[in-house]
Amino acid sequence: MSLDHAATKPHERLSAALTDEMVAVNALIRDRMASEHAPRIPEVTAHLVEAGGKRLRPLLTLAAAEMCGYDGPYHIHLAATVEFIHTATLLHDDVVDESDKRRGRPTANLLWDNTSSVLVGDYLFARSFQLMVETGSLRVLDILSNAAATIAEGEVLQLTAARDLATDEGVYLKVVRGKTAALFSAATQVGGVIAEVAEDQIQALFDYGDALGISFQIVDDLLDYAGDPSATGKSLGDDFRERKLTLPVIKAVALADTEERAFWSRTIEKGVQNDGDLEHAMALLVKHDTLEATRQDALAWADTAKAAITKLPETDLRKMLADLADYVVARVS
Amino acid sequence: MSLDHAATKPHERLSAALTDEMVAVNALIRDRMASEHAPRIPEVTAHLVEAGGKRLRPLLTLAAAEMCGYDGPYHIHLAATVEFIHTATLLHDDVVDESDKRRGRPTANLLWDNTSSVLVGDYLFARSFQLMVETGSLRVLDILSNAAATIAEGEVLQLTAARDLATDEGVYLKVVRGKTAALFSAATQVGGVIAEVAEDQIQALFDYGDALGISFQIVDDLLDYAGDPSATGKSLGDDFRERKLTLPVIKAVALADTEERAFWSRTIEKGVQNDGDLEHAMALLVKHDTLEATRQDALAWADTAKAAITKLPETDLRKMLADLADYVVARVS
Repeated sequence: MSLDHAATKPHERLSAALTDEMVAVNALIRDRMASEHAPRIPEVTAHLVEAGGKRLRPLLTLAAAEMCGYDGPYHIHLAATVEFIHTATLLHDDVVDESDKRRGRPTANLLWDNTSSVLVGDYLFARSFQLMVETGSLRVLDILSNAAATIAEGEVLQLTAARDLATDEGVYLKVVRGKTAALFSAATQVGGVIAEVAEDQIQALFDYGDALGISFQIVDDLLDYAGDPSATGKSLGDDFRERKLTLPVIKAVALADTEERAFWSRTIEKGVQNDGDLEHAMALLVKHDTLEATRQDALAWADTAKAAITKLPETDLRKMLADLADYVVARVS
Repeated sequence: MSLDHAATKPHERLSAALTDEMVAVNALIRDRMASEHAPRIPEVTAHLVEAGGKRLRPLLTLAAAEMCGYDGPYHIHLAATVEFIHTATLLHDDVVDESDKRRGRPTANLLWDNTSSVLVGDYLFARSFQLMVETGSLRVLDILSNAAATIAEGEVLQLTAARDLATDEGVYLKVVRGKTAALFSAATQVGGVIAEVAEDQIQALFDYGDALGISFQIVDDLLDYAGDPSATGKSLGDDFRERKLTLPVIKAVALADTEERAFWSRTIEKGVQNDGDLEHAMALLVKHDTLEATRQDALAWADTAKAAITKLPETDLRKMLADLADYVVARVS
């Protein structure tokens, strides 16, 4: 990595390399989230869409299309599409997470938010489908409607699997694909599809997005136990308190003796948590070295992502995508 | 109407005339609502999808395609699509309505239901898009994605308009199109599109569905003030208690003197309702004869629906659709 590259984060370099396209994407997003009849819609979406997030998913679509030599107008539509799907998912996640977190402590505000979150999320899903229909590509529609189904299925699976000690790494992977990787892989894949490149390149783009998304989510789950709260902005152990079975714990459950299994059953399955339980959980993760094993999994997926895109032409954008895979796991390297 | 026709309800005759197709639709629905990874999904949808509702929307699609001479396989997909969209909408409406009704009285069950309702609704939306993509018709995708946006927009509009005395009949019509008519008109229109009939026939199918949906919803809103609770299964005055501005009240507000306006403002806008208020509201509707005016509107929309389908070939199915328009308003005739 040159000094030049090290100076800025890979997604910032992607953003800089794709400035004109991102300006067009943001304009399209603002245009399509407006509603003539229901002014509440842009009110609700504005703080999400305008908040200036990293726009990682649209950047992936733009980068993929550009790398594949696409010179039409529809990568802009597709980039806006994936951002709309992402935003809709966030809105619906709010309902799911808030229901859970604030159980027994509802506020008028919470209830109002639920209503708006559900309906405005639905609106954005519908808008995203309108945008993809405009591309005129049935294959793109096929990929993105499959991604939408995988996302919803993964979220439902998480509902039932999160507190069940029988959840193994295979189920975890399905949940992670639904939560994160399905939209990443669709975002990169449609960039290649719209550019009409060869199948092996389209597959490589899918594989890159899939592996990037998986490593991204594994790192997120790892940081919940091993992160620096001042850097992540999250409290350590949130997932434990919310009784979410993530990879570090799944690995520890697999290695647990009878007594340890009883501990996990009480704290995660039954939700009976006392002072000192988080510390004991952390001690078990250290004992079985599952934080390190989880970190190795994340690194392996990042390597898979980097290997996948070697099938694409060697360009600056490809280098940035490879660096992005490194960057995602750098937080735990 | 012959004696023969009078013997059964029009949607039952439609169902009988389209038995084979409906068997195929139901099989497809069962197949596609299954989820390999998340068994909770069919659990949640089963009581809705299997409950044996009238399946009015899929019947409209099948009837439209059949009337237009379609002989391919995709009317089955489209019929399942509109039923999935309808079911997803019902699931999300549950969240919206329950938030409102049970305000301040949450139960674990309510919260769990919210979560499942949102996510399983999303899953059905995604599945519906997969089904339409399979038809390979971009125009069908365009129509149904537009309908999905109109539905969500109408629901959001209702959130803000329902308790605002400035809501006029124009806004009410937009809400009604979103809540009900957009899916009816899309259901009939796509039947013609898939059969590739002439534009004026496609337009006639749209107009029929649109007008049928509007009359259907107006009748529903009217029955809330003028129905027989033992026949409708709803308590009289639910909309008043929930402070929903519907057509009978909108018409009464438009004719209100200062004192009456203050009454509507207190009960609907401010939500301060006392014993006797419902009776007073009913008295105002009678005074201004708005129940009758609302009934006349419903009848006029039913006439519009019947007039629209005269542009289609004169068949038994066309007769059943015309009878269906009469049947929808017969509850208030």
